[in-house]
Amino acid sequence: TIADAVMDFLQSGGRKPLAGRRAIVTSGPTHEPIDPVRYIANRSSGKQGHAIAAALARLGAETILVSGPSGEPVPSGVSMVRVETAREMLAACEAALPADIAVCAAAVADWRIDCEAVQKIKKEGGALPSLALTENPDILATLSRLASGRPSLVVGFAAETEKVVEHAVAKLGRKGCDWIVANDVAPASGTFGGHDNRVHLISADGAEDWPKMSKQEVAGRLAGRIARYFEDRT
Amino acid sequence: TIADAVMDFLQSGGRKPLAGRRAIVTSGPTHEPIDPVRYIANRSSGKQGHAIAAALARLGAETILVSGPSGEPVPSGVSMVRVETAREMLAACEAALPADIAVCAAAVADWRIDCEAVQKIKKEGGALPSLALTENPDILATLSRLASGRPSLVVGFAAETEKVVEHAVAKLGRKGCDWIVANDVAPASGTFGGHDNRVHLISADGAEDWPKMSKQEVAGRLAGRIARYFEDRT
Repeated sequence: TIADAVMDFLQSGGRKPLAGRRAIVTSGPTHEPIDPVRYIANRSSGKQGHAIAAALARLGAETILVSGPSGEPVPSGVSMVRVETAREMLAACEAALPADIAVCAAAVADWRIDCEAVQKIKKEGGALPSLALTENPDILATLSRLASGRPSLVVGFAAETEKVVEHAVAKLGRKGCDWIVANDVAPASGTFGGHDNRVHLISADGAEDWPKMSKQEVAGRLAGRIARYFEDRT
Repeated sequence: TIADAVMDFLQSGGRKPLAGRRAIVTSGPTHEPIDPVRYIANRSSGKQGHAIAAALARLGAETILVSGPSGEPVPSGVSMVRVETAREMLAACEAALPADIAVCAAAVADWRIDCEAVQKIKKEGGALPSLALTENPDILATLSRLASGRPSLVVGFAAETEKVVEHAVAKLGRKGCDWIVANDVAPASGTFGGHDNRVHLISADGAEDWPKMSKQEVAGRLAGRIARYFEDRT
């Protein structure tokens, strides 16, 4: 919105601190097909990831948004790549490298169906179909552990329904990323599909609790922190 | 649209042949939760079911639309009940009875997860989660076989990716409904999420092939046939 743009402009003093930097942002859910008509999905709307891409672009970063199925509009000034599955999302991220910044905000399906059916599975086949699962590639860990060309700053998201900070601290070490934005997606939180978010920013320095704010505000604040990270390094 | 309304008006001679009749229409997909953030879905958009509800209302029927998650707007003149799961959809249909007409256009999930997880299933739990399935209630068969208060005309939909008419004829007998509208939802057909549909109307009299037309036109033609059914009976 214009208000967001004005706010970012005022906060940044109108500078483009991320000019010359390249950012990859993932957003939305992934859909993992069971057969031609059915799939496994999750409740991510894409609002938070899209807002982060918009905020990074406003600070001057050349931004590539790799998004799963989402009804959110493409933010202005952002290049969009649409994908459906986790495997397609990883391939699109790899194709978008090199980058200085990777923000993995998508709710990537951890598993996919081991053997997708070519025709619609019939209910009348007798036995219940068994949904054997296999693990999807881990996009955050893959980008965090690139032997060459790793983005300088890799930021993951942790969507938890319990023990939010504890799970997120463990995830930071396990994935090898630099920061984790942890949020509570328990149904009572209203985070998935909602406009507000309450997050914790986890880094090697510890956990910072941010107050509840809109997803646009979370995005603006995160983009500002990313800009400061690069300023501190130079 | 205004054009649709004008077309229906001209076709019906401006009459309301379904005035005094009550119709229940189901539409859209159902979502079956796996845990608080994940679910099984299908590619139904709700376009066809919503268009049928609109067409029946335009011909004068008091119309209740029971819809799973869909981005389609509520048609004018229609009462809408939103549901998520197959069990909720059946309960809403039963609550909407009695009715003269039931059109089951929703793509109801045949199965749900046997034991929905209360907390998000963690990837790090070690073993892959097993998705044990259990059969959902069959809304079409339930409405078709009501011992008392069965709607006079029960119309089912068959979404097939192969042997469309053959599967639909078998479904007519198995479910106990009066008509089946059978369509091809193979990915190449573009039916799911698309604007057009190519259907076959299956009844005890045989199979009628309709040419490819918009989902609005399928709805208008089906509503007209429903009106004629009631005129022939009186």
